Amino acid sequence: MPEYVDTLIEPRWIVPVEPTGVVLENHAVVIDNGTIVAIEDAAPARQRYAAGEHVKLDTHIVLPGLINSHTHAAMTLFRGLADDLPLMEWLNQHIWPSEAHWANESFVQTGAQLAIAEMLSGGTTCFNDMYFFPDRVARTAQDCGIRAVVGLIMIDLPLIMIDLPTAWAQNSEEYIRKGIAVHDEARNLELVSTSFAPHAPYTVSDQSLRKIQTLADELGIPIHMHVHETEHEIEESIRLHKMRPIERLSQLGLLTPRLIGVHMTQLLDSEIEALAEAGVSVVHCPESNLKLASGLCPLKSLVDAGVNLALGTDGAASNNDLDMICEMRTAALLAKGTASDPTAVPANQALAMATIDGARALGLDHIIGSLVPGKAADLIAVDFAHPATQPVHDPVVQLVYSSGRDQVSDVWVNGKRLLKNNSHTELDLTALFDEVASLGARIYRYDHQRAAKRT
Amino acid sequence: MPEYVDTLIEPRWIVPVEPTGVVLENHAVVIDNGTIVAIEDAAPARQRYAAGEHVKLDTHIVLPGLINSHTHAAMTLFRGLADDLPLMEWLNQHIWPSEAHWANESFVQTGAQLAIAEMLSGGTTCFNDMYFFPDRVARTAQDCGIRAVVGLIMIDLPLIMIDLPTAWAQNSEEYIRKGIAVHDEARNLELVSTSFAPHAPYTVSDQSLRKIQTLADELGIPIHMHVHETEHEIEESIRLHKMRPIERLSQLGLLTPRLIGVHMTQLLDSEIEALAEAGVSVVHCPESNLKLASGLCPLKSLVDAGVNLALGTDGAASNNDLDMICEMRTAALLAKGTASDPTAVPANQALAMATIDGARALGLDHIIGSLVPGKAADLIAVDFAHPATQPVHDPVVQLVYSSGRDQVSDVWVNGKRLLKNNSHTELDLTALFDEVASLGARIYRYDHQRAAKRT
Repeated sequence: MPEYVDTLIEPRWIVPVEPTGVVLENHAVVIDNGTIVAIEDAAPARQRYAAGEHVKLDTHIVLPGLINSHTHAAMTLFRGLADDLPLMEWLNQHIWPSEAHWANESFVQTGAQLAIAEMLSGGTTCFNDMYFFPDRVARTAQDCGIRAVVGLIMIDLPLIMIDLPTAWAQNSEEYIRKGIAVHDEARNLELVSTSFAPHAPYTVSDQSLRKIQTLADELGIPIHMHVHETEHEIEESIRLHKMRPIERLSQLGLLTPRLIGVHMTQLLDSEIEALAEAGVSVVHCPESNLKLASGLCPLKSLVDAGVNLALGTDGAASNNDLDMICEMRTAALLAKGTASDPTAVPANQALAMATIDGARALGLDHIIGSLVPGKAADLIAVDFAHPATQPVHDPVVQLVYSSGRDQVSDVWVNGKRLLKNNSHTELDLTALFDEVASLGARIYRYDHQRAAKRT
Repeated sequence: MPEYVDTLIEPRWIVPVEPTGVVLENHAVVIDNGTIVAIEDAAPARQRYAAGEHVKLDTHIVLPGLINSHTHAAMTLFRGLADDLPLMEWLNQHIWPSEAHWANESFVQTGAQLAIAEMLSGGTTCFNDMYFFPDRVARTAQDCGIRAVVGLIMIDLPLIMIDLPTAWAQNSEEYIRKGIAVHDEARNLELVSTSFAPHAPYTVSDQSLRKIQTLADELGIPIHMHVHETEHEIEESIRLHKMRPIERLSQLGLLTPRLIGVHMTQLLDSEIEALAEAGVSVVHCPESNLKLASGLCPLKSLVDAGVNLALGTDGAASNNDLDMICEMRTAALLAKGTASDPTAVPANQALAMATIDGARALGLDHIIGSLVPGKAADLIAVDFAHPATQPVHDPVVQLVYSSGRDQVSDVWVNGKRLLKNNSHTELDLTALFDEVASLGARIYRYDHQRAAKRT
């Protein structure tokens, strides 16, 4: 008697990511009730299981869904609004004023939908977000069927470039209160979990950081923060606090395995050791770091020190896309260039950063990040029948160094097929693009009218 | 009475590249007999012309076809064969022995076909090649309908890692004789021109370099050469010639506007000045430079000095693709990161490197590189109806920073539509992939058997 299961996938290659380096051929992934039931020889599997859907993928590689460990999803709406500018001009004259004007609930929902459409198209099945109105991001993610960790944002130090209060919250207490309400709500959303998201050391007070650490320990959730993004950040911290941000975080008790430190382009050797010892995860965002000329994250040194490394795109205003395949490639290439070592960050390691090590950073490695029986069925198929990925001497190398996001043909999250033969099953892109175009035109006009007034 | 023309293209946006920064809306490109006849207001153009083919592209940008100013097309067959290795191990144990064994006429033809399929798919309409059997590359390009500059290769210094003679030629005289025969043949191929392609300063003798310069002056063609790719190259030149390669080329009379110097990752300020003064063109290959950890080309300094800068992918064995949209993006991002300046190499400049400045390097800017009446109708359409390129605040920024190669929907070379709604009109990809898979399997087996013997 065959065993009834939801889905049987038979691709050309399976890369489970755990164990590292394994490439399976003539194997099948068996999915039932949102979970990976088995990965086994294809021929007997075909006999053993009666699958609701039997998916043959003759020219495809199947792997865990990619995890974008740092983004600001709603900022897709600012993509290409202001580019190739000095950082402070970009922030002060374009991004911050636009956010002050636009970042309301409906903006966040539309921007997050656009981001989710893009991420699913490109094989991302989970994203770690930091933005205002995380409640909206949470519900949008759940509705679209993608997995998300929504950041309970906190900004309580007034900076010249940020208008406080924001539309989301007035003060530290309100940020915390609303954040905890979002956390409570998210318990009812199967695909959503939360992190605390104090924006950065320079935008959050000592008192709030201490409080966040206490609450994070109580709730058992991670802390997602920009750390050491630019040289300017370090200089200001030394001026104001007489110490570098990592030293300050250490004194406040934040250097723990809960911390997801994003960017880290400015690191002393002693700081790399401290991060490794404390079990902090670092999220590398190479394309954003390059585009904003923030600095170069010393990836190879972090690897050598044993720091857990995840990968993120950052928001689309500074990337300008949410393409994790391209981000893997940029990470692997840039690591070699900056370390003057062509063996730095090989393809398998770039893939681990975008899957299992990202899951580890988010505290979700028991659920996602590799294709292992018992884990959630978050997986993707990439079709190598494209002139850029022929011939196939090594599937993982081909994935990281030659594939494009368009080659992601199929995406499952929690067993649900959200992308099928390159088409979205849940999202109506035409309606979404109409809404985005209309809102986009207003965003552009507002930005240009402000620019015209300045001159 | 309407004027009969072959094609009228009405896209959402036209970026002619010349003049810089211009974005036209409600305009049409009129093509007849392989040539751009006019670019004018769409409404009157619709009345004035009766077009054999009227192409409406409502969500697309139309721009000049991209020019890949440095590649080794046939090396697509080695893509992913050996990666993440130290440079000398990669060359000595994998690439050079594989070339010695495989680089024959049929290999070059199949590899070039695969490269051309990939390049056309991604919007490249002209490539500057350097490889053995340039006669085959020339005929394959012409047959496939893509424009090419084929390099008349020359290698006459025996290095430990190169077996001389090669299958293409035995010695300096034969390289020259065969090269000139290819040049003569190419006169009958409408889409093909030639350059001399002395491989690199360390593989070509003084005598041959002098001879090549004389012949290049006589024939009026460029000289395409790897120059200052690695630190090792500089050190060896100092050891053998008591001078750096650029100084040696200068003494041999090669620093002229004919020279297309590729890579240039190691440059003194005085050398940058010398290149600018001599009118040498530099081809930047950022992804290959990163992947092989060759060094970082000082792009911003070259721009500031006024050097003409083109862009290339290098061969697919060290990239690992021939994607010029991604290469523009990498060039723009890496320039910002290495110069610590987010304003370095803005989107328009990256686009110029991949179009008009590439044409200038190849001596073809009177024919291609911009959409100007009288130039050849080499142009492409990129569809922005993709979640990664919405909303469209700035079409050129969107093209360079957010677009994927898959969004290239249509490609014309010399007025002929080679890609139509994302499908090749001339190439049979299924047959090509079968041939590539079969040859690829043999290439892989040979490489692995050699590796097994070593251990």
